[in-house]
Amino acid sequence: MWDELQPIGRDPGTGGYRRYAWTPVDATLREWFTGAAEARGLEVVLDRAGNQWAWWGNPDETPGVVLGSHLDSVPDGGAFDGPLGVVSAFAALDGLPARPSTPIGIVNFADEEGARFGVACTGSRLLTGALRPEAALALRDGDGTALGEVIGVGPEHVGRDEQTLRRIGAFVELHVEQGRALVDTGDAVGIGASIWPHGRWRVELPGEANHAGTTALADRRDPMLALAALVQQVRASAQRHDALATCGKVAVSPNAVNAVPSSVTAWVDARGADEARVRAVLAEIEAAVVAAGGRLVEESWTGSTPFTPSLSRELQAILGPVPVLPTGAGHDAGVLATAGVPSAMLFVRNPTGVSHSPAEHAEESDCLAGVAALTAVLAGLL
Amino acid sequence: MWDELQPIGRDPGTGGYRRYAWTPVDATLREWFTGAAEARGLEVVLDRAGNQWAWWGNPDETPGVVLGSHLDSVPDGGAFDGPLGVVSAFAALDGLPARPSTPIGIVNFADEEGARFGVACTGSRLLTGALRPEAALALRDGDGTALGEVIGVGPEHVGRDEQTLRRIGAFVELHVEQGRALVDTGDAVGIGASIWPHGRWRVELPGEANHAGTTALADRRDPMLALAALVQQVRASAQRHDALATCGKVAVSPNAVNAVPSSVTAWVDARGADEARVRAVLAEIEAAVVAAGGRLVEESWTGSTPFTPSLSRELQAILGPVPVLPTGAGHDAGVLATAGVPSAMLFVRNPTGVSHSPAEHAEESDCLAGVAALTAVLAGLL
Repeated sequence: MWDELQPIGRDPGTGGYRRYAWTPVDATLREWFTGAAEARGLEVVLDRAGNQWAWWGNPDETPGVVLGSHLDSVPDGGAFDGPLGVVSAFAALDGLPARPSTPIGIVNFADEEGARFGVACTGSRLLTGALRPEAALALRDGDGTALGEVIGVGPEHVGRDEQTLRRIGAFVELHVEQGRALVDTGDAVGIGASIWPHGRWRVELPGEANHAGTTALADRRDPMLALAALVQQVRASAQRHDALATCGKVAVSPNAVNAVPSSVTAWVDARGADEARVRAVLAEIEAAVVAAGGRLVEESWTGSTPFTPSLSRELQAILGPVPVLPTGAGHDAGVLATAGVPSAMLFVRNPTGVSHSPAEHAEESDCLAGVAALTAVLAGLL
Repeated sequence: MWDELQPIGRDPGTGGYRRYAWTPVDATLREWFTGAAEARGLEVVLDRAGNQWAWWGNPDETPGVVLGSHLDSVPDGGAFDGPLGVVSAFAALDGLPARPSTPIGIVNFADEEGARFGVACTGSRLLTGALRPEAALALRDGDGTALGEVIGVGPEHVGRDEQTLRRIGAFVELHVEQGRALVDTGDAVGIGASIWPHGRWRVELPGEANHAGTTALADRRDPMLALAALVQQVRASAQRHDALATCGKVAVSPNAVNAVPSSVTAWVDARGADEARVRAVLAEIEAAVVAAGGRLVEESWTGSTPFTPSLSRELQAILGPVPVLPTGAGHDAGVLATAGVPSAMLFVRNPTGVSHSPAEHAEESDCLAGVAALTAVLAGLL
């Protein structure tokens, strides 16, 4: 399965993946998912949020045990973030000695990374109703295409999907670790504890477009200087409050060498061990932005998200003494847990901790240990 | 003519123009140019650099008096920068009491702004040989398309065009002023003196891609912080040396909200009254960039460019006492003057000095004064 996925959406220049939701590359990934499911006798259905589900048995009679993750990527992302969980789900199914009477589901969540429309976990949030359908349908990508035009579900059907939610007895998402905690403990596999509170903010920094060769410095309103101050404020505030804050995306208009920009838009990602420190970081950033004549808009916010404690305890009982880790990254399993769907996570060791990069890696032996753990969990939960 | 050009390439959102070289919008502008020329009995030819020339008479017998400018724009540029010179050229021809025996040419220079391929005055530089054909053909736009694929001239023919250069007895480019010198003097029209030395530099700031939600601040190599320092250095150095320097274009990779960027590329535009101060600005910027682990590459450099003094004196003799102005902006007339082609410029007052912006403006009465001056210059040079 890994060999089949490897070439899809890989940029020959960077070696990174550009697997954005509902693009031709994503369609190829979805075809692969359907093929892998049908080869195993599973029935593939699309839910009202554009997520793909492959079912063994009838989950409308008995809720199933669901495994899976997502196949999309950030721009120039790694091979493991997402696909490792989907491939491991199929491998765990293959590893069962016999097909059980309890239904089993494998899911490919849509647009987890939010690389195309700017909102992470779009598929799981739509599914649970955490993202309103009107808001989702109106999201536009960089080319101005609306999500509603490409999601593949009629606009009138998009939204919280009660039937699909009822089908999920428990959801376990296996994922490559995006830090080095398992390197420190010396374990190949860990269990997720909770997801840090995190959010995204858009910062609009207005200026005045002008000719770079003729406009006196004193006559300029150059928003690039405001961007410089913002980037430094983001880092300083994160440091002061022992949190994480990042300015990783910028849009400059008109973005021409010989023009003072008319405006700069920047995005801030902030996370921390508790909500208070993240809010403190944002309050400092917003005060500085407003003082500079700009505006800060919250695009998303997710409070601290514990995975379902009873399910995590079941995983510990099945797997024995493995580390239990908090994570700074958002995941579809967190969205489901917040909505009351029993959900848990397994992490596979990442030797460098690097993620969202072509350098993202996991050793084959650790991936196989992950599959073995997921197989044990699946068998234990059935 | 102004009414015909107005809708072409105008962005309905910003009200600015997006007229990039060799795009469908540019093709429409070129069709307009051909139509306007043929309606006046001129013969339109393309030179070896992709520039359009409309000729009255036979310039291979006697070199002609050439008027014109360019029709392309920066992203979200104004209506006047370029087109005012082309429209005024046709209007000056229309204003002649009778067609003379001396040939007259009107030119539409290709890709003056360099908005698509990053090099300004591509058409005039190719024509004079200031830009090597191999270098030009290899330039790529943001989508990876090479200039050689779209220029509309067979690659083997692209380059310095001796025949076209011999046809130009004198070139006069009328242009909207990109500053407020004429506002201060109270004149509608001025004569160009020289173009400040100016250049473009590309700054590469490497980093390490990583997940914004899981990578400790201390473990990051975040090139956005280097960008912030660069933007501040550019402004500080320009101020210190009484020059102009601008960071107006940035490319962040992968430019995702939840990723520490792997790299940032920024472009610096710098100009000043003399070469020494521009070089002093760049030396400071380069030292800071190198100290931060980055790299600065010169993409273009044009020394101080006086227009042809004898031709400028002729214009003064024809027009009487009008101001003579230096300019910080590059122009095709400067490229031609540097190559030894007699070239001069007329500037039309700009009430705000704003340029390269939808707010760029010139009063109709000043534009008509510009046409009257250009008509007088044309008649006087014939």
